Amino acid sequence: MKIALAQINTTVGDFSGNGNLILDYLNRAKRAKAQMVVFPEMAVCGYPPEDLVLKNHFVENNIKTIAALAKKVHGICAVIGFVDTDSKGKIYNAAAIIEEGLIKKVYHKNELPNYGVFDEKRYFYPGDFDINSCLISAAGQKIGISICEDIWVDAGICTKQAKAGAKILINISSSPYEIGKLKARQELLSQRSKETNTTIVYCNLVGGQDELVFDGASMVVSAQGKILARAKQFEEELLVCDLEQSENPVAALLDDSQEVYKALVLATRDYVQKNGFSRVALGLSGGIDSALVAVIAVDALGAENVTAISMPSVFNVKATRQDARIIAKNLGIEFKEIPIKAIHNVYLKVLRKFFQGTSANIAEENIQARIRGNVLMAFSNKFGWLILTTGNKSEMAVGYCTLYGDMSGGFAPLKDIFKTRVYELVRWRNSQTSEPLIPKRVLLRAPTAELRPNQTDEESLGAYEQLDKVLDAYVQGHQSVSAIAKEPSQMQYVKKTVNLVDKNEYKRRQGPPGIKISERAFGRDWRLPITNKYKE
Amino acid sequence: MKIALAQINTTVGDFSGNGNLILDYLNRAKRAKAQMVVFPEMAVCGYPPEDLVLKNHFVENNIKTIAALAKKVHGICAVIGFVDTDSKGKIYNAAAIIEEGLIKKVYHKNELPNYGVFDEKRYFYPGDFDINSCLISAAGQKIGISICEDIWVDAGICTKQAKAGAKILINISSSPYEIGKLKARQELLSQRSKETNTTIVYCNLVGGQDELVFDGASMVVSAQGKILARAKQFEEELLVCDLEQSENPVAALLDDSQEVYKALVLATRDYVQKNGFSRVALGLSGGIDSALVAVIAVDALGAENVTAISMPSVFNVKATRQDARIIAKNLGIEFKEIPIKAIHNVYLKVLRKFFQGTSANIAEENIQARIRGNVLMAFSNKFGWLILTTGNKSEMAVGYCTLYGDMSGGFAPLKDIFKTRVYELVRWRNSQTSEPLIPKRVLLRAPTAELRPNQTDEESLGAYEQLDKVLDAYVQGHQSVSAIAKEPSQMQYVKKTVNLVDKNEYKRRQGPPGIKISERAFGRDWRLPITNKYKE
Repeated sequence: MKIALAQINTTVGDFSGNGNLILDYLNRAKRAKAQMVVFPEMAVCGYPPEDLVLKNHFVENNIKTIAALAKKVHGICAVIGFVDTDSKGKIYNAAAIIEEGLIKKVYHKNELPNYGVFDEKRYFYPGDFDINSCLISAAGQKIGISICEDIWVDAGICTKQAKAGAKILINISSSPYEIGKLKARQELLSQRSKETNTTIVYCNLVGGQDELVFDGASMVVSAQGKILARAKQFEEELLVCDLEQSENPVAALLDDSQEVYKALVLATRDYVQKNGFSRVALGLSGGIDSALVAVIAVDALGAENVTAISMPSVFNVKATRQDARIIAKNLGIEFKEIPIKAIHNVYLKVLRKFFQGTSANIAEENIQARIRGNVLMAFSNKFGWLILTTGNKSEMAVGYCTLYGDMSGGFAPLKDIFKTRVYELVRWRNSQTSEPLIPKRVLLRAPTAELRPNQTDEESLGAYEQLDKVLDAYVQGHQSVSAIAKEPSQMQYVKKTVNLVDKNEYKRRQGPPGIKISERAFGRDWRLPITNKYKE
Repeated sequence: MKIALAQINTTVGDFSGNGNLILDYLNRAKRAKAQMVVFPEMAVCGYPPEDLVLKNHFVENNIKTIAALAKKVHGICAVIGFVDTDSKGKIYNAAAIIEEGLIKKVYHKNELPNYGVFDEKRYFYPGDFDINSCLISAAGQKIGISICEDIWVDAGICTKQAKAGAKILINISSSPYEIGKLKARQELLSQRSKETNTTIVYCNLVGGQDELVFDGASMVVSAQGKILARAKQFEEELLVCDLEQSENPVAALLDDSQEVYKALVLATRDYVQKNGFSRVALGLSGGIDSALVAVIAVDALGAENVTAISMPSVFNVKATRQDARIIAKNLGIEFKEIPIKAIHNVYLKVLRKFFQGTSANIAEENIQARIRGNVLMAFSNKFGWLILTTGNKSEMAVGYCTLYGDMSGGFAPLKDIFKTRVYELVRWRNSQTSEPLIPKRVLLRAPTAELRPNQTDEESLGAYEQLDKVLDAYVQGHQSVSAIAKEPSQMQYVKKTVNLVDKNEYKRRQGPPGIKISERAFGRDWRLPITNKYKE
């Protein structure tokens, strides 16, 4: 049996676009002589549609789309994810099994994830488990159909399908990328295939949707737990696997930095383009964060679609100003330098009488960052460019960033990237060209916000190596201060850091969306109150 | 039997504060000779704690708090909401029934709301229904204990408790305020009491927590469905009700505008103070929105804690500048006027060469709004004041506001108030003093953002009467364009408006938190994707 896994990049709410994409891949699968073609979870409406599914007309339009698609399915069996509804108006995360112009069966997902970024119990009813709804016969084989979470549950419906005689288990998923997630999926599928003695066909979504990026890497796993076929990570692909053949395409796995980098590039491209933008701009300071964002933008959109704006103040040293220019030149992107001193001076003049008798503090510093935000947004408003912000996860965690200043922009590619990983990614990206795109001294210079003379980040925050470990334990691990501070000498530092994370919730709440790459990002999987007096 | 309903204002995460508050009310109940005292849902940790309950140490500290409280309960039976845990680490939304220093029983909430603003299935396991866990005997009576959502479910545990002989049903709640919610609660409790032939004791939380405000209005309803006792709305109270007496305190209900206004005042006060601020500032333009926010701030925090900053540009007419001054004077608040022309001119000068050949558009307009945001934040950073933003729900819905401009600030009191309701609230507040605090001409002048000459809102958006109706149907009702446009002539306007709502999701995502007063606010109950190509 030949089966095609249509690893497509859908767009939420784009019924006509998604419908056309599905038809295109369906026809490609037929041309490849596949007997079956499978599409990701909710391929018809895109994933996750969130509260759009609370609108009846949205669900109806999705039903019309699957009905129209069904009429066009001939000479192949297709499994397509959509949102189903019943006469009582209940809705279900569903898979349509379509043959010869007809929807033969509809399976309703049994296991609804309601943790992390997932809110499926907010929307969907679980399917009543009925073995007939999820067992089909195609090409002389008994095949079980399940949706994403279903296969992660021990002794769940996949096990029951195997007991009922299924030899092939098809699972359609929209499983978001996280570091280590592909490995976890492979282990799970390998275990599941062995315990059920079935071949597992796992089709995943690819592409960016707001803060999530789906990595694809669809695969077929043999009953012995071996990978028979695997699609590429972060790219659309029609993976055709002949289950009777031992030779099928198995895409090589990306290494760690490459994987994260590709996630950032794809998510940035999709956010920009799916939201109707073609060009972006960013503040390029000569520091390492904005340098990395510039390279990501160029890899995502092409150098011709990226404008770098350097906005030096009196505190920016010559070296960073030069580096900004060099990076832009290396990348071949448009570069503008707009010194902000004149603007800053007028603010200070206007505010002088109100601030009389106070000493200069964060107020005067932040005015500079907010002037930069205003200048960038003026370009955005004038030319229709989307602004990429350049802050990283370490900064967002402890609030080492200026709200309405450097946090101003439509999308934050590094929102879930700790500073130490920023360095890793830059080193990796530099290694991909004969001459490094980002000058070495950018990596060697002590990180600084340059909002006052001789400021350095690590003076305020501690060494990033140490900071990121504490943040990882606190944010990702939800660990307590006493668990994080392994020695009493660390207690004060850990307490101070954790306190910064807590009290900067209000800043994160107003930050731009950015790409989730870790188990717990500052997004839908981080729902902490702002008003919070908890102290351990 | 005398029962005390402790309608208290807890703070999320403040175990010691909440514990002391609980003890204080417990002792007051004893002094009032009550045999029982009941506290709101999750009184120990505050509600809603959101992802804090995913931290083991948070749950442990809450367990320690309830254990310590229990030791201090003597001579009265107390029902206190907390988060329980079991040996497997599962957590439950729970009620402890405490007598003579011991936790006699613990009931685990059966019905977990997972819609609207609620995510309880994300956190909690439902209790196994066991009639023994929720039936107690106190003062010679059989009493059923339930938590919030439990009582909203037909034929649920309250019905079972009554069948098992309960004559009194105690329900501890943390039910957020919405317009019409109190009426719905009263109808529900009246129906439930009649069908079960029980007296219902309903204790609700009071106070603000981020975007939610809890209105209290705890009550006792007789088996005939009559209100025996009711606590005040939006105030802390120990409501003591003698079930054998016909005369018990029944607080009068607030009228519509008064109710909403009180919600805004309490939520603003609590957000500011629970987050450690005492003073606020706001941009006072002379328009009606900022006028209303100024009055709310004064009623919440006192005139001495409010600073109004007027930041006229060349487009602000003399009348609005004067009105800003008059409003500040009427309210007795500090007033500063900071013209922004000089700053705006430098921006334009600096940007001139980059914008050459373009005509003035929204870019130049928004620079002004962002200068104002920067100035306000400079005061915030300099003096530690929280900035209140002044935008309303109509503006937030259609994006008629400037991100990082007038949207800059820590809290948005009018976030869920449509423009038409802004007028109602101002009229109501003006009627409360012999001389109106807000000059009549402020209500009569056509609303304008004053970012260009002779601009008016309604020129861009249509009449607010019409706009708010469309927005209400689309946002609150999730209705389709064709359902909203009752006549074909309205179709174009409705489409345009709905399109504005959709495409401004990105702005709302970066807006400050504000107070939910409607069935669907732009907060936890509005989870729409930014990337969204859905068109009906």
